[in-house]
Amino acid sequence: MVAQIIDGKAFAAKVRGQVAQHVSALKAQHNQTPGLAVVLVGEDPASEVYVAAKHKATVETGMTSFEHKLPADVSEADLFALIDQLNADPDVHGILCQFPVPEHLSERRVVARIDPAKDVDGLSVVNAGLLASGEAGLVPCTPLGCLMLLRDQVGDLTGKDAVVVGRSNLFGKPMAQLLLRDNCTVTVAHSRSNDLPGICKRADILVAAVGRAQMVQGDWIKPGATVIDVGITRVPHPEKPGKSRLIGDVDFGPASEVAGAITPVPGGVGPMTIACLLANTLTAACRAHGLAEPQGLTA
Amino acid sequence: MVAQIIDGKAFAAKVRGQVAQHVSALKAQHNQTPGLAVVLVGEDPASEVYVAAKHKATVETGMTSFEHKLPADVSEADLFALIDQLNADPDVHGILCQFPVPEHLSERRVVARIDPAKDVDGLSVVNAGLLASGEAGLVPCTPLGCLMLLRDQVGDLTGKDAVVVGRSNLFGKPMAQLLLRDNCTVTVAHSRSNDLPGICKRADILVAAVGRAQMVQGDWIKPGATVIDVGITRVPHPEKPGKSRLIGDVDFGPASEVAGAITPVPGGVGPMTIACLLANTLTAACRAHGLAEPQGLTA
Ligand SMILES: NC(=O)c1ccc[n+]([C@@H]2O[C@H](COP(=O)([O-])OP(=O)(O)OC[C@H]3O[C@@H](n4cnc5c(N)ncnc54)[C@H](OP(=O)(O)O)[C@@H]3O)[C@@H](O)[C@H]2O)c1
Ligand SMILES: NC(=O)c1ccc[n+]([C@@H]2O[C@H](COP(=O)([O-])OP(=O)(O)OC[C@H]3O[C@@H](n4cnc5c(N)ncnc54)[C@H](OP(=O)(O)O)[C@@H]3O)[C@@H](O)[C@H]2O)c1
Repeated sequence: MVAQIIDGKAFAAKVRGQVAQHVSALKAQHNQTPGLAVVLVGEDPASEVYVAAKHKATVETGMTSFEHKLPADVSEADLFALIDQLNADPDVHGILCQFPVPEHLSERRVVARIDPAKDVDGLSVVNAGLLASGEAGLVPCTPLGCLMLLRDQVGDLTGKDAVVVGRSNLFGKPMAQLLLRDNCTVTVAHSRSNDLPGICKRADILVAAVGRAQMVQGDWIKPGATVIDVGITRVPHPEKPGKSRLIGDVDFGPASEVAGAITPVPGGVGPMTIACLLANTLTAACRAHGLAEPQGLTA
Repeated sequence: MVAQIIDGKAFAAKVRGQVAQHVSALKAQHNQTPGLAVVLVGEDPASEVYVAAKHKATVETGMTSFEHKLPADVSEADLFALIDQLNADPDVHGILCQFPVPEHLSERRVVARIDPAKDVDGLSVVNAGLLASGEAGLVPCTPLGCLMLLRDQVGDLTGKDAVVVGRSNLFGKPMAQLLLRDNCTVTVAHSRSNDLPGICKRADILVAAVGRAQMVQGDWIKPGATVIDVGITRVPHPEKPGKSRLIGDVDFGPASEVAGAITPVPGGVGPMTIACLLANTLTAACRAHGLAEPQGLTA
């Protein structure tokens, strides 16, 4: 084993601690408490687990958590009425609607209804445009988390050859924008790319966000590269019948003999997502009150 | 000389002809005439030349051209009042403000004031966000023109290795999005990239938009590659004292011995920009009237 294992769990805890410090300073100096509103439509068990985790993490940093549960058959009009109310509420600085939403609702329209300044998932067209234009907006949480890990691990990213495998709106495209903003030479690859092994092999920074377990082989990796594994695939546990485990996009064992540093799955990128949701909520609150943005917690 | 010389002037004329055909069909079948409003602030001679060229090309396709000239010291409020009026005018489908504007005005704020559905330069944050999100918006004219040339020259772009040198909001970043949408593997390089020759040498499709005369050398080019030279630098004419000529970012002579196809400067990308402005105005008009978009004239 050559590679340093990047401890995303520890780093996420550090980020959450920084958020908590800023929150207590905001309260003490400005009498302001950042607030995050989470909207859950229906009773999907996985979504309920995610929402509960977000609630817990929000409260732990000293922010206010507002939870809104709507029935699975809620009309778009009623959902939009709630979003409008949250958009107008000065105690709410961040709003997110837990996806997926039931079939009769459009995720695109739901996101578009949220005030871009409160869109802490960073998924709206306006925030995508601000990111693409190099302006200050809110950045999707998982790519922001990967950027934080990379800055911490690599330092200045200028001039590094970065390869992002995957081009989703949720991850690949915003990740590419962030790496470009930090002065990497950025390549985006995807299912239609030719010679994926060769493309990956050029990368000083390799970010895989595909969702195919162990697709990236050890010999696709440039010796010494920093590898960020975003993929999550749930597979049956090989030893514990009835249990499952999570596998990344990178074949971890062989890859960690070549890479300079690598994130494990689980415990790598995963924990950064909620940490960055909290960071985004803090950022939105600072901007709403005309205060300086927290250093190191934004793109 | 191995490379085919891509005749952008002829291709642009073809595009303008297609636009004119659509315009006359729109008139005949739907009694609608697309209209383009161009706003010029102040009396910059170069801008006056560009505006006159746009006016002429607009009228030639059968569209209506609205010209608005405002004094150099116009207030932002008065300029915005005009833009608001154009936004509301059903005969105006496209609006552009010729840049640069005088110092006391903000280009960013001016573009943001234009209704995104009429922003035929495609420069607003909303249109950048729509492009980044893979949704239908209006795409900046020069990258759209390069995409049209590439599709015509190469056919299906799927799986090609495309390298864009330059990452401006005006050209490099939207060009990269368009190539990604057409399923290229896309690399964006810039002034902080290491080993630019090596990066360019991998490209099946090389697009240079830097503004440094003849920077891209012949031996940076992969044999058979398609080379799109966007750069324009005006230099003193070597033989005619007092005259100038235009030079691209690519060292044309040596490059054309290696490339499979290459755009010259002038006569390559340049003529495509106005052609695509007309195409965007037509697209905006079709959308405004709920009609099918013109085939082959959009991204
Ligand atoms: N909190 C977290 O840790 C977190 C957050 C977000 C995502 N994820 C995980 O990251 C992965 C990707 O998420 P996503 O939302 O971006 O997924 P997605 O929308 O499904 O996108 C997957 C991307 O991978 C590309 N791809 C598919 N097969 C490929 C192949 N054989 N070779 C190269 N590229 C291929 C696709 O290319 P095409 O565009 O050509 O189809 C697409 O761009 C998933 O496993 C997801 O669970 C984790
Ligand atoms: N109608 C047309 O034909 C048309 C339309 C648009 C533009 N153009 C021409 O295209 C060129 C670029 O236009 P633009 O608006 O995109 O220019 P820009 O905003 O000045 O951007 C230039 C880009 O080139 C990069 N760059 C500068 N020096 C470099 C170097 N030594 N190596 C690699 N990259 C370098 C810059 O990198 P950094 O980001 O690191 O600074 C920047 O991203 C200009 O010549 C312009 O006249 C022509």
